[in-house]
Amino acid sequence: MILMNDQMTVTLSGGKNTNVLYLDDLNELATKLGTYGNRALLVADSNTANLFKRLPQNNIILEPGEGSKNLGSIEKILRTAVSVGLGRDDYIIGFGGGVICDLAAFAASIYMRGCNLVLVPTSLLCMVDATIGGKTGFDFMGGKNLVGSFYPAQDVLICPQTLKSLNEREYHNGLAEVLKHAILSEDEILYKFLLSRKSQILEREPKTLLNLLQLSLQVKKIFIEKDPEEKKGIRQALNLGHTFGHALESSGRFSRFSHGEGVAWGCCCALEAGYLMGLTPKEYMESGIKLFSFYKYDIEYRIGRGEWLDFINYISKDKKKVDGVVQFVLMKGQGNYVLTPVPNDIVMRCVLSNPNTK
Amino acid sequence: MILMNDQMTVTLSGGKNTNVLYLDDLNELATKLGTYGNRALLVADSNTANLFKRLPQNNIILEPGEGSKNLGSIEKILRTAVSVGLGRDDYIIGFGGGVICDLAAFAASIYMRGCNLVLVPTSLLCMVDATIGGKTGFDFMGGKNLVGSFYPAQDVLICPQTLKSLNEREYHNGLAEVLKHAILSEDEILYKFLLSRKSQILEREPKTLLNLLQLSLQVKKIFIEKDPEEKKGIRQALNLGHTFGHALESSGRFSRFSHGEGVAWGCCCALEAGYLMGLTPKEYMESGIKLFSFYKYDIEYRIGRGEWLDFINYISKDKKKVDGVVQFVLMKGQGNYVLTPVPNDIVMRCVLSNPNTK
Repeated sequence: MILMNDQMTVTLSGGKNTNVLYLDDLNELATKLGTYGNRALLVADSNTANLFKRLPQNNIILEPGEGSKNLGSIEKILRTAVSVGLGRDDYIIGFGGGVICDLAAFAASIYMRGCNLVLVPTSLLCMVDATIGGKTGFDFMGGKNLVGSFYPAQDVLICPQTLKSLNEREYHNGLAEVLKHAILSEDEILYKFLLSRKSQILEREPKTLLNLLQLSLQVKKIFIEKDPEEKKGIRQALNLGHTFGHALESSGRFSRFSHGEGVAWGCCCALEAGYLMGLTPKEYMESGIKLFSFYKYDIEYRIGRGEWLDFINYISKDKKKVDGVVQFVLMKGQGNYVLTPVPNDIVMRCVLSNPNTK
Repeated sequence: MILMNDQMTVTLSGGKNTNVLYLDDLNELATKLGTYGNRALLVADSNTANLFKRLPQNNIILEPGEGSKNLGSIEKILRTAVSVGLGRDDYIIGFGGGVICDLAAFAASIYMRGCNLVLVPTSLLCMVDATIGGKTGFDFMGGKNLVGSFYPAQDVLICPQTLKSLNEREYHNGLAEVLKHAILSEDEILYKFLLSRKSQILEREPKTLLNLLQLSLQVKKIFIEKDPEEKKGIRQALNLGHTFGHALESSGRFSRFSHGEGVAWGCCCALEAGYLMGLTPKEYMESGIKLFSFYKYDIEYRIGRGEWLDFINYISKDKKKVDGVVQFVLMKGQGNYVLTPVPNDIVMRCVLSNPNTK
């Protein structure tokens, strides 16, 4: 076991800090939540609300799922905040996966121009991807997270025990982001950890899980602190695999592929594209692909010729553009990324089955 | 005439700058607006929209008045932004008084987690009070500006020509904040300017108006830059007169007294309260009251005994509290303020007619 502190602080724009705290079990978590005061407003969904023996007095329970991630839910949270007399120095606590945490954080960012915020992510994806970094938001007119803010939580409480109840696919959904962090990291510690501890990781052995989360968040912290508002081309590196992955998700209409499955596949496409463009060393590409294959992601998947136009159309809609041209994250080696356009013929060679057949 | 630069830069939290630009006339303003690109979205109300010979292509026109300052208007602005294909690097331009500028700025702060923002205040109150400093927001469940954000505009464009059409009461509504700035300023330049240029100011002589705006904003800039998010007890000084003034406005149910009339009256109450508490020198109190009297504010107004309980109840609802106790801004002399509670009997002596009659 790699020994680390059970606390980490991430410094964001304006010198605001997020403290990441790891808690052993749900009892310890409940005790910690009690320290945020009687008026604290809990935001949960009907699944995560079940993790409480007794819900905090002030609470709002939303329907689970992406369908709740809208302006109507924000209005509900704000109305509840007003009616329980929440003050600017009181806390909104988001307790759930990405949808709940993003909604609670956005509401906190605008209530009285910003009240206190605590996030308790309950899915692996949310723990490693969504809760540190301060991005908040909701879906609007078909655009994912089209409206939002940058508003870091004071505290992020991580209780690996909440991961026990995730189904296998949901667990792998988050694990893909951990693997992505291993490729992006300046050192090989996380990469080697993933190779040597596979069985404990897949069994969700508590101490291993804790280490995995700590190592993964440590990588994310470095990118976020250098570029909190994604304006310097550094934080964008965390989008490794996402341009390919989102297009796969979108062309599969968000049901055939989970976010994590798309990202895993997309990371491998990005490694191959980098290799084809002479940027990524062959051995580095192969060791990366090996990692995703080792964790049984379907990285051999290729789209059919009939899907190509749809796919490249989704690629062109990617938000990360410079002068109208989509920027991909490609790798030159361990921790060494570059943001660059990728020609369509290279994209085609990476994603299409039999690209050379005319 | 006092010569100053026709530009000022205000630095806010996170190192963000607001450039304040002064423009000679509406033609110059229209030319400047053209530089923000074809996709820029103009937010105006049906009054200010009339100032355009031809409206910019992308625009949303709201009903004038405080009644529009709600979540519904925010949703309308966001929907229009999506439907015209506004990008994160494009501009939302708020063109109007405080309601329009606060709404446009809030929408810009959350669209794609923050797009570009330009504010064009068209009332004196909005020019001197609302557009620099980055406060945005809308009314919610009866709370004025209960939901909002801190989001400074890149550019604030001030065209004194737009003030020509204001009626006398609306002009005085803004002028009260200028007088307040004269009391708060570390030097006497603005105070002396107000005494010596009264007729030109009341006639709205263009060059005098320009100087007045520049001097007034210079004072506000100093307080805002030292405490952008109102967390250090410095920016709060700009609330001089507002605790008394808001209570007067509220007890008059926002119709009998304009904001400016309330602030003018409240500044005089605060000067007197400070004097009664031994904080404000007598001569300083008298010179301040003389200024408001000189500009014909009704500072002799006193509330009736039957209105006292309502009035003190409004005072106690003031947002500026420390440990539940309302903090008044009182003056120890030119530019020398203090935040302190004021005992009810002192408040009574300042606001009540015949407070000593039992």
